Amino acid sequence: MKDTTMRSELGWSDADTIVVRGYDLPSQLLGHVDFGGMAFLELMGRLPTPAESAVFNACVVTLVEHGITPSAIAARMTYLGAPEAMQAAVAAGLCGLGTVFVGTMEGAAKYLQQSFAKAGDTYDIDELAAAIVADHRSRGAAIAGLGHPVHKPNDPRSERLFEIAAEHGFRGKHVALIEAVRVHAERASGKVLPLNATGAIGALASELGIPWQITRGLGVMARAVGLVGHILEEMRTPIAAKIWHATEAAVTETRIAN
Amino acid sequence: MKDTTMRSELGWSDADTIVVRGYDLPSQLLGHVDFGGMAFLELMGRLPTPAESAVFNACVVTLVEHGITPSAIAARMTYLGAPEAMQAAVAAGLCGLGTVFVGTMEGAAKYLQQSFAKAGDTYDIDELAAAIVADHRSRGAAIAGLGHPVHKPNDPRSERLFEIAAEHGFRGKHVALIEAVRVHAERASGKVLPLNATGAIGALASELGIPWQITRGLGVMARAVGLVGHILEEMRTPIAAKIWHATEAAVTETRIAN
Amino acid sequence: MKDTTMRSELGWSDADTIVVRGYDLPSQLLGHVDFGGMAFLELMGRLPTPAESAVFNACVVTLVEHGITPSAIAARMTYLGAPEAMQAAVAAGLCGLGTVFVGTMEGAAKYLQQSFAKAGDTYDIDELAAAIVADHRSRGAAIAGLGHPVHKPNDPRSERLFEIAAEHGFRGKHVALIEAVRVHAERASGKVLPLNATGAIGALASELGIPWQITRGLGVMARAVGLVGHILEEMRTPIAAKIWHATEAAVTETRIAN
Amino acid sequence: MKDTTMRSELGWSDADTIVVRGYDLPSQLLGHVDFGGMAFLELMGRLPTPAESAVFNACVVTLVEHGITPSAIAARMTYLGAPEAMQAAVAAGLCGLGTVFVGTMEGAAKYLQQSFAKAGDTYDIDELAAAIVADHRSRGAAIAGLGHPVHKPNDPRSERLFEIAAEHGFRGKHVALIEAVRVHAERASGKVLPLNATGAIGALASELGIPWQITRGLGVMARAVGLVGHILEEMRTPIAAKIWHATEAAVTETRIAN
Repeated sequence: MKDTTMRSELGWSDADTIVVRGYDLPSQLLGHVDFGGMAFLELMGRLPTPAESAVFNACVVTLVEHGITPSAIAARMTYLGAPEAMQAAVAAGLCGLGTVFVGTMEGAAKYLQQSFAKAGDTYDIDELAAAIVADHRSRGAAIAGLGHPVHKPNDPRSERLFEIAAEHGFRGKHVALIEAVRVHAERASGKVLPLNATGAIGALASELGIPWQITRGLGVMARAVGLVGHILEEMRTPIAAKIWHATEAAVTETRIAN
Repeated sequence: MKDTTMRSELGWSDADTIVVRGYDLPSQLLGHVDFGGMAFLELMGRLPTPAESAVFNACVVTLVEHGITPSAIAARMTYLGAPEAMQAAVAAGLCGLGTVFVGTMEGAAKYLQQSFAKAGDTYDIDELAAAIVADHRSRGAAIAGLGHPVHKPNDPRSERLFEIAAEHGFRGKHVALIEAVRVHAERASGKVLPLNATGAIGALASELGIPWQITRGLGVMARAVGLVGHILEEMRTPIAAKIWHATEAAVTETRIAN
Repeated sequence: MKDTTMRSELGWSDADTIVVRGYDLPSQLLGHVDFGGMAFLELMGRLPTPAESAVFNACVVTLVEHGITPSAIAARMTYLGAPEAMQAAVAAGLCGLGTVFVGTMEGAAKYLQQSFAKAGDTYDIDELAAAIVADHRSRGAAIAGLGHPVHKPNDPRSERLFEIAAEHGFRGKHVALIEAVRVHAERASGKVLPLNATGAIGALASELGIPWQITRGLGVMARAVGLVGHILEEMRTPIAAKIWHATEAAVTETRIAN
Repeated sequence: MKDTTMRSELGWSDADTIVVRGYDLPSQLLGHVDFGGMAFLELMGRLPTPAESAVFNACVVTLVEHGITPSAIAARMTYLGAPEAMQAAVAAGLCGLGTVFVGTMEGAAKYLQQSFAKAGDTYDIDELAAAIVADHRSRGAAIAGLGHPVHKPNDPRSERLFEIAAEHGFRGKHVALIEAVRVHAERASGKVLPLNATGAIGALASELGIPWQITRGLGVMARAVGLVGHILEEMRTPIAAKIWHATEAAVTETRIAN
């Protein structure tokens, strides 16, 4: 017989009690946990240690605000048409956090976690890195987490994130592996390939035990915060209509010139 | 001549520098600010004091996880059809954070802030409260922030939030006003009207100086975190297909019975 | 006792039968109804007459493609980040069809339908129009459906739509009323106020008996079609990245100049 | 030098003219083209012949309404929370039209079109079909377009769609190939594998020359129409709150039982 049982353990309440992830919300979480700790709880099902909290918060903070991104433009365009529904503007901005921009974080966490899972208890970091690079090159695929158009030879965010990780005892095997991947990839390609922020975060999320399948969620939650900031700026010093008109003008110019 | 200048101060970078809201991201934010502080920075343009941070974090943490809400169901349904795009599932969930559920927070912040703005330097809390209640009753409108189907006579979250606010010196005039509104509303209606969590958060956001126009954003950012948690649970112990089939069965039963 | 019965009559199927809105889909709809007729069926619960079909199709066709709109830019930005989820790009574009652009159609249908509902069987078009204009002016509100930045003194789409309506016997009282509203509004304001396409469609939707509450849906369904066209063009001759880079450059220029 | 030229040919207007896809909208499209024809124009850049119109409309009409789907539930849940933004409810519903439900149409069109592209001018339908089935089986992948939980041994929609295609001269090589794929797949698996509606539409979209990369768009545009119908029904006979409460009750029951 088909199992129709529905199970969800995230939160529930009755007249006297409000429970979130097994904690009494008013007495055990409010005043005791910050937003980053709450996000960690949602992902891991338990509260972070202070060390975990430091590393996790640094990762998420890195992802909040990247200035005028495609995602921010989409959110602002949506707000221009539907200012009464700012939640839909944030939603529109999130819809674009797919394989091209945020997916690289997922990609890095995936090959790091899968390499160790496959290798089992004994492994050689250098061999694993060589295998990852060879696999990508044989498929003609870019290696997630490497390369940056502007920040060369090193992405200052990655360096700082790994410094914070080291301070708190989280500069472990996943960090070692992605750094080895970088060395092998630079050697094989002859190019400078900075370890970018999404690569660093993919490695640190793996150190924290976050499954690669949900790492994109770090970017989604962080960027939701950032997009609220963009909507607020759009309320005060709007640019959406200007972007629209500049785009229309550019398209019109091309049409007339042809 | 039309002003086509586009201004955005949220974030920018060049080869050497990554700046977010005027701070050097790697050296001044990473390792120094947690996720809640970063969210505060996005909303207020400056970092919070420790007291502000405590109050702000408590508000946002309250909003992260409410269990099986319509928003969580929408996100899970979307994930069922498009598991490759979990960002779109979170986006679908956020789209419903409108006037019915999260808007009450905005509504409370609005009447609180507008009452004080109109009153100027001298005001009588009790008179302001009476006017708010009278205005709502004359329009037949519900008063945002009051009433709860389950948590009666008091919402334990509101009590705890005001306790935290008091500890940090933020139990100010907006809190006083919404409590007075409650008293007047209960007297006028003859009903028990708990001050619910969105009412409490609307008051505390006002204490923190967050403009009412963006208070819905607190719910949007918090719930984005919660929805990532729901997607993760859906990956592990899926219920979306069961909800779908149960709904189809219920609708079919009605059709056949008629 | 609380009614938990769930009723939906839109569509159902079993092993032998697939029914949509009371019709057998394979034998009664496929090959017999076009896309416009199907949309009419979804809105009205019955198939259109040929005259209704002509008017309805003309309205919807008008709304499909408006070139480089904010909505199209949002969709293209989303596609840039998540090309694997084009449905999310269309969704992002739809999110902005709110009160500013498409809502005017809803607004026009609303005051037209409410005026007649309030007036009952006997009414004077001219008096109703005067009342609508007076009401808007007293609130300082713009009158939905009037005014256009480019198409003056007449919007060629509105003229053509009313011509098609006249050919098919649908140039009725709602059209007469919105034309009278225009006359009164121009007299009162001293401005040229073209009856724009959303005003004309608001009037014709009312002629067809479509409730004003769902008229925004005409724009949503039509624009979904148009946005698919934009995604296809974006696949072939992409402009999203160019819009992004041009916007970033403009914002950077402002920052450096200040 | 980097090309910053932005090109878009979908639509433009100036004071006198409104052009969509090269046609004057008021005089050449309104009254001459129906919604299906307009959708075809968006996808193909030209108006359909009557035969193309018949086949295209039948495909799209098939996709409009599938009753209580996950997508419809997501839209209704969103409308429950944000009734002021029905466009966001439709958007939420569209977000789930990904690889699981609508993607099968894309998948079928992809293998059909790629098989012929690879084969060139001379091909043997039976060999191509055998190769498609062998390739899927070697990867352990399901064959898009085959199989249905309810409609066995044949999906009545597919049969009717191919009948319509035959009447209009569009039962061509792509139809032949997917039918051969079915035969080979049934033989190899020993199972009854109906050619489902998305398979049939994938084949007919290929007959019409629609690139497989955009075939998902047929489902997106059709379902946008259907979701507007669901929102209208939800306005009149709401079920979203009932679905929510039934789900909460089921989850609570499981929690208490454990």
